[in-house]
Amino acid sequence: MRIIGVDPGLASTGYGIIESESNKIHYIYHGVITTSSELPLSQRLFIIYNSISDILDEYEPEEAGIEALFFVKNISSAIPVAHAKGVVHLAFAMHNINVYEYSPQAIKMAVVGEGRADKKQVQEMTKLILGLPDIPKPDHAADALSAAICHLNSRSFYHV
Amino acid sequence: MRIIGVDPGLASTGYGIIESESNKIHYIYHGVITTSSELPLSQRLFIIYNSISDILDEYEPEEAGIEALFFVKNISSAIPVAHAKGVVHLAFAMHNINVYEYSPQAIKMAVVGEGRADKKQVQEMTKLILGLPDIPKPDHAADALSAAICHLNSRSFYHV
Repeated sequence: MRIIGVDPGLASTGYGIIESESNKIHYIYHGVITTSSELPLSQRLFIIYNSISDILDEYEPEEAGIEALFFVKNISSAIPVAHAKGVVHLAFAMHNINVYEYSPQAIKMAVVGEGRADKKQVQEMTKLILGLPDIPKPDHAADALSAAICHLNSRSFYHV
Repeated sequence: MRIIGVDPGLASTGYGIIESESNKIHYIYHGVITTSSELPLSQRLFIIYNSISDILDEYEPEEAGIEALFFVKNISSAIPVAHAKGVVHLAFAMHNINVYEYSPQAIKMAVVGEGRADKKQVQEMTKLILGLPDIPKPDHAADALSAAICHLNSRSFYHV
């Protein structure tokens, strides 16, 4: 089972791909899609959509995990994220990939075992779980890998 | 010059198409794309994206006007709108259509001549400007036509 995690943002969308095989988790790839604030909104969304589509074509994940947006407090920062998330969801639909959303607390709980863990703890555990030499960079890609791990864990619990 | 106005929403996305010819405004078409709340988010965005793309293919507007989202106060209602708006912007980018955003006040000013006009006044003036027998229905489609009128007016002022 191959999973993609995505952490959408208009300026920076992180993604991370992992795979499970006989109860082991393997790291496959991670990266980040960046768009310039000098471009019009439509062009920035076009770049994000095309880049995610290329990644789905190349790595062929079967399911996706993504952090839910319902918990954001600042509306002016939430709207550009929601724009980006819209086109990421569309790319999944175009590739027939089911998407599962998780609260930040659920992701922390899945990765660290503690819903109030701090960012650094989550990144450190993501590194350990995936057997990486360093914490994945940048933060958006590390968060995407955490979302992927969370989905893989939930999957095995709930037999999605 | 043919203009499309769009009023995006996850449950209901309105659109309206108008045309200017030697300083006259002609009504072309309006309608609404609805999606069921029983569908997953990705599928709803897929329907919105495909429907808007079909409308752009059929009516071939050259530019688009859309209401800006920066003024929304309720975050839980703004996020689904922003998801829908993301895929609408993507459809414009895929069709090489430039999009112009307007505040609700700018749209009221353009249509009624008064930035604090109420919804009913805007709809009544939209009907009169376009020479329609009735107020366009539903509200999302009327709002989309108002955004299109606003863009057409701004265009002639600013020589976009």
